[in-house]
Amino acid sequence: MAEKGTADENTIYVGNKPPMSYVLAVVTQFNGGSDEVIIKARGRAISRAVDTAEITRNRFVTNAKVKEIKIGTEGITNEEGKSSNVSSIEITLSTK
Amino acid sequence: MAEKGTADENTIYVGNKPPMSYVLAVVTQFNGGSDEVIIKARGRAISRAVDTAEITRNRFVTNAKVKEIKIGTEGITNEEGKSSNVSSIEITLSTK
Repeated sequence: MAEKGTADENTIYVGNKPPMSYVLAVVTQFNGGSDEVIIKARGRAISRAVDTAEITRNRFVTNAKVKEIKIGTEGITNEEGKSSNVSSIEITLSTK
Repeated sequence: MAEKGTADENTIYVGNKPPMSYVLAVVTQFNGGSDEVIIKARGRAISRAVDTAEITRNRFVTNAKVKEIKIGTEGITNEEGKSSNVSSIEITLSTK
């Protein structure tokens, strides 16, 4: 799926913190010279990943475009060893 | 944004019900002869929209592909007349 070896460095994983924490991380990546940042999230954090992309694009890195959005399903195992599926999203922002 | 006049009929709006309610609506659209269904959501329901698309694709309409995913920002006004922004998503599933 990844198009380049440097994907990991440019990837921001969105969790349960306020969206602005992740916006700051994305903006920092762009300011550090990256021309592409991948925002990833699973489950309920998916909405926050979209917020992160939108806030970044509308307020901070206005030349960033949504290059690609991928959705998928990942199998996870909880503490009790029970497995279930969770949706995931991968939003690629690019200034190229 | 809409590419065709029939978009409304094929659009499922995802809200706060369990994902399966929306999966059923999407599957019903496909079974009724549509070859394209658009799943829309705003705010926290965005995660559920992704769940809806993934469950539909993995379990019920296995020939459906994710044709396009768009994200955006919409201005909303709450009961007190205060305006704010909310993220939105639009997932197009297609069996064509």
